[in-house]
Amino acid sequence: MRTLLCRFILQLWLSAICFPQAVPADQLKLMPLPSEFQAGNGRLAVNGSFSVALTGYREERLTRAVERFLNNASRQTGLPINKPSAQVDKATLTVHTEHASKAVQEPGEDESYTLEITTAGAKLSAANPLGAMHGLQTFLQLIQVTPEGFAVPAVTIHDKPRFVWRGLMIDVGRHFIPLDVLRRNLDGMEAVKLNVFHWHLSDNQGFRLESKKFPKLHEMGSDGLYYSQAEVRDLIAYARDRGIRVIPEFDMPGHSTAWFVGYPDLASAPGPYQIERRWGVFDPAMDPTRDSVYKFLDDFIGEMARLFPDPYFHIGGDEVNGKQWDANAKIQEFKKAHNLASNEALQTYFTQHVQKIVSKHHKMMVGWDEILSPGMPKDIVIQSWRGQESLGAATKQGYRGILSNGYYIDLNWSAARHYAVDPMADGAANLSAEEKERILGGEATMWSEYVGPEIIDSRIWPRTAAVAERLWSAQNVTDIESMYSRMDQFSWRLDFLGLTHNINRVPMLQRIADQPGIDSLRVLADVAEPVKDYTREELAATPPTQENPLNRLVDAVSPESEVAREFVKQVDELIAGQCQDRAAMVKIRAALVSWRNNDDVLQAASSSSALLREAAATSKNLATIAAAGLQAIDFIEHQETAPDSWVKAESALIQEAQKPNSAQLLLPVAPGAQKLVEASAATGACKGR
Amino acid sequence: MRTLLCRFILQLWLSAICFPQAVPADQLKLMPLPSEFQAGNGRLAVNGSFSVALTGYREERLTRAVERFLNNASRQTGLPINKPSAQVDKATLTVHTEHASKAVQEPGEDESYTLEITTAGAKLSAANPLGAMHGLQTFLQLIQVTPEGFAVPAVTIHDKPRFVWRGLMIDVGRHFIPLDVLRRNLDGMEAVKLNVFHWHLSDNQGFRLESKKFPKLHEMGSDGLYYSQAEVRDLIAYARDRGIRVIPEFDMPGHSTAWFVGYPDLASAPGPYQIERRWGVFDPAMDPTRDSVYKFLDDFIGEMARLFPDPYFHIGGDEVNGKQWDANAKIQEFKKAHNLASNEALQTYFTQHVQKIVSKHHKMMVGWDEILSPGMPKDIVIQSWRGQESLGAATKQGYRGILSNGYYIDLNWSAARHYAVDPMADGAANLSAEEKERILGGEATMWSEYVGPEIIDSRIWPRTAAVAERLWSAQNVTDIESMYSRMDQFSWRLDFLGLTHNINRVPMLQRIADQPGIDSLRVLADVAEPVKDYTREELAATPPTQENPLNRLVDAVSPESEVAREFVKQVDELIAGQCQDRAAMVKIRAALVSWRNNDDVLQAASSSSALLREAAATSKNLATIAAAGLQAIDFIEHQETAPDSWVKAESALIQEAQKPNSAQLLLPVAPGAQKLVEASAATGACKGR
Repeated sequence: MRTLLCRFILQLWLSAICFPQAVPADQLKLMPLPSEFQAGNGRLAVNGSFSVALTGYREERLTRAVERFLNNASRQTGLPINKPSAQVDKATLTVHTEHASKAVQEPGEDESYTLEITTAGAKLSAANPLGAMHGLQTFLQLIQVTPEGFAVPAVTIHDKPRFVWRGLMIDVGRHFIPLDVLRRNLDGMEAVKLNVFHWHLSDNQGFRLESKKFPKLHEMGSDGLYYSQAEVRDLIAYARDRGIRVIPEFDMPGHSTAWFVGYPDLASAPGPYQIERRWGVFDPAMDPTRDSVYKFLDDFIGEMARLFPDPYFHIGGDEVNGKQWDANAKIQEFKKAHNLASNEALQTYFTQHVQKIVSKHHKMMVGWDEILSPGMPKDIVIQSWRGQESLGAATKQGYRGILSNGYYIDLNWSAARHYAVDPMADGAANLSAEEKERILGGEATMWSEYVGPEIIDSRIWPRTAAVAERLWSAQNVTDIESMYSRMDQFSWRLDFLGLTHNINRVPMLQRIADQPGIDSLRVLADVAEPVKDYTREELAATPPTQENPLNRLVDAVSPESEVAREFVKQVDELIAGQCQDRAAMVKIRAALVSWRNNDDVLQAASSSSALLREAAATSKNLATIAAAGLQAIDFIEHQETAPDSWVKAESALIQEAQKPNSAQLLLPVAPGAQKLVEASAATGACKGR
Repeated sequence: MRTLLCRFILQLWLSAICFPQAVPADQLKLMPLPSEFQAGNGRLAVNGSFSVALTGYREERLTRAVERFLNNASRQTGLPINKPSAQVDKATLTVHTEHASKAVQEPGEDESYTLEITTAGAKLSAANPLGAMHGLQTFLQLIQVTPEGFAVPAVTIHDKPRFVWRGLMIDVGRHFIPLDVLRRNLDGMEAVKLNVFHWHLSDNQGFRLESKKFPKLHEMGSDGLYYSQAEVRDLIAYARDRGIRVIPEFDMPGHSTAWFVGYPDLASAPGPYQIERRWGVFDPAMDPTRDSVYKFLDDFIGEMARLFPDPYFHIGGDEVNGKQWDANAKIQEFKKAHNLASNEALQTYFTQHVQKIVSKHHKMMVGWDEILSPGMPKDIVIQSWRGQESLGAATKQGYRGILSNGYYIDLNWSAARHYAVDPMADGAANLSAEEKERILGGEATMWSEYVGPEIIDSRIWPRTAAVAERLWSAQNVTDIESMYSRMDQFSWRLDFLGLTHNINRVPMLQRIADQPGIDSLRVLADVAEPVKDYTREELAATPPTQENPLNRLVDAVSPESEVAREFVKQVDELIAGQCQDRAAMVKIRAALVSWRNNDDVLQAASSSSALLREAAATSKNLATIAAAGLQAIDFIEHQETAPDSWVKAESALIQEAQKPNSAQLLLPVAPGAQKLVEASAATGACKGR
């Protein structure tokens, strides 16, 4: 009951009422928030003599997890924490595990753990290694600096996930992502308790995995950028060590041009084919009418089913435009002969065949919404890019599903926007309990049109932590302020795992300016965001391709500007307080002045660098927006009412200045400036001040 | 002659007179500066279709060097530069090599190259792969952003090194440095054309290399932190690929406590021994009187001589305090019996025996100053920690030598101070030409009392680039401004090689504050430096040890503050201009205001973190210094004369505030503030304003 009360209040404002004792709630910067926690008295020191003992069930994975835990604690604190495992009665932290997890990890295995920390020591207990590893991550997040040095607060945590399938998909087809980058992202996944790495291994733009049966797949379809099977086995082991399943996806019958470079006979139109360099939906698709295609897929899926131990196997199935099928007379004849009225029906015919192959190789099929059709066996899983409506429809037909609509992290949405998406809400809100059971969870999807090794971390982190919390924590954990406060704290700690979302930013800006002194560029970059959704394609003068460098300002800026978020929040608070807060005005003015004055410096520097010159128009727009905001704050501060004509003119300027140009950048401080302008008007929120 | 003229002018101010055509000299940000270069007309574009062809002598190392070059060019620019090697007539850059270098790299091999870049293409020619690899590094440094995109300027360069031995020593004994850290530092060495990696593998605090003959050396002397022989072979190959020799050092007969943990019988006093955790000079030393010791060393050096192919072998030989020898009656008897009047004579006896062993295993011995004694064969090399005087004395006796005194990068000196040290100057200035020939070069030395994997890059880079330039470029290349301008440009480009001297700083500051918002700490960190020389030991309340965390502000700040350097320069220029430059005053005032105002914010935050609290006193000192400077600039700006009493009082305050306290930090802006105070006085430089 106490716990329930806490949870309820947390949902509102993370109030300190839950913690009458030593630990204020906002110091428990956990992400995802555990399902139950209760503060204790005092702290447990974390210093050079910190040690861990394992009890109960033992396996090498647990030993490695403890070593990794100590190593990460050491990197996070800078303390030399390297004691060999201690005796139980002397260890600072005892980790007790009851029994093994499954030989091959499955969705629905027990992932719960209990962590009890007192001033005397800490105990972590879990049914199996999965829970123990989650508990170790919670402990790491609890380590904080205190006036007496590093410590964890006394606390009791009972924790388990809301959903069993909490994933991150990485598309390595459009841009190849090297193994070291994948490994550090698996480390990040472990830190936020994600448990599925969905590896999108093939697409029109690349086939990224060695096939021993069909070597022309990777030899001709990858530009030499592919993973060997030995490397894949290593990565699967690396993931299993972190409680993460690895599900391969081979997209078919569409999104498969890269297959056809080496094996044109699989396609529905004659070759030759080349690796696709552009982005979008393309015509090439496998020929669903030929036995030889299914023979090939049988051999191929058999090979891959042996390589990947996970019981699930993803066959894609999305976005077939049907043009090759329409243009192929034999396929048209086949459709008629088999009473296949539409291309959708033809794809269903294909998918049913592929499902039988997948099943023959002892796997359950996963695919995007399009694979769903009457008559499919009930063990398949639908991954919904279409949304909760589609997901709900699947569960009503008895199928299991996971949500990805709303978790497309490549679209540069805010963390708050992703966080607000719930697999059980909207179109899935009115499902029966039994139907809801079939919603297994969700996956963040990192499509890779605009990411390479240098950038991808900044597109995944920290926003994926918000998705991870949505999938782990209770449905009523929805406070945005709390989420941001914890995410901001968590983000820099990821630096110590080797993730580069923070540290790569400055070198990229220096490259754009070709010099170390980049203050003016940094001021601009701090308040700019890349355009959202698919606007980048729309704004491009020529269609973007795989060969475009990803070295522009749009690539260097964060998907979500913390500075802009903070600025808009300050403006909102000022207005909510009837424009009375002088200190807030000073802060807002200082920010606006720095943006207005920044443009002169940036323009002067921009002529020497092609990469910097591209940013000049956006810099000018920022100055325009800031100038409008400054005049508004003048009105507000002097308790004057802005003339309507002025409000209209400035609003138009702001409107114009926030339109993205060919630099493909947004200025999310613009709405803040606009609010100031409106507040200063006769009809504005603060007119009564 | 034209080249000579250029060189002369460069020495003065890098004047644009050398470059009547397209490229202003300050855009050629090369480090080290080449021996001859001449600007051409226009530029050669570097874009996605850039390609390289090899001609002449071929070997796999050259192919790998070109692959690495393309990869580094790609990382540096963000361009997808990944074309397979092109045909000669179509390649952007042709690399021609005459013949192989030696099977095992030797000092004195031809390292010269010629690089000719025109708007039509680039040609790099070298006698052997060493020169070709140096030329590729020069090309990488020439890539710059232009208004039209990335390009290299048209230029002709003839380049060769001044010294044949240009090294970096890394001590892995006091703190273990993992292989990935060594590898990225070898990449940095390649970038500045250093050619010797001196691997200080054993010391009192650790024996870091697997010995198959004497496994207790690494098993008992390393806390498990050592390199396997396979790893060593890999690193040697990695270094050879970069034109870098690897010289192992096993320090003896002193600095050897870690040997005695496993093999106490080698020592001059009975065991047992433990790994030393403190820093300094300690008593344990090998027993020079026993045959069994030489038998052991014969076996050990034989094993190591086979592992390390380099013709040189470093036996240390420094800092034997003789206390164990004095306390051992048998050793005293031995000295008498052999007419060894002093412990120095006894060490010589030891060194002569060891030299014979080293020679027997076909190596030439290298050691610190102490190994020099009459009668040593002339093939040994003296590494001088004592200075040019000692070095000169060695060359007069016919020995070859290298300089390290003045290049101790662990002492946190400025780059300018290291840069001013020349192996041929001071005590070596008056040597004959033949004697000077024997000065082979020098080595920067990275002793590791206060560095671990997280910090070491920031202690090596970018200052080691200044040492590298001293050892490569002409003796008369001494302009400090030019050096800093090029070093600042070079430093951030090292980020793309994976070096962490820049990027680790912010995470370390965030750890100290335990939060992402660290503005006030950053302002302080930007103007603070660690104490110099051996002051850190002197200021420590308790003697520092290997177990101390390296997570303090003193560990996070740079050895040389760019902000402070810039500030003092601005003050100097203001005063040189008779305090007339109003714009300079505005800048100086802004800096001082930010430092004065910073303290309140920092003090408020400091109570929550033990690591931050340590910095509070330094922050207060900064505010004091800034306040004095601000009052001085007030006097100067208002053209008033400061009263003598005020000058005296403020000078005393500054004097007191710049004393390092237990935080072990310096505030190098203090001299700038002091100059302002003095300039504002009646007798000050700007009194006539």
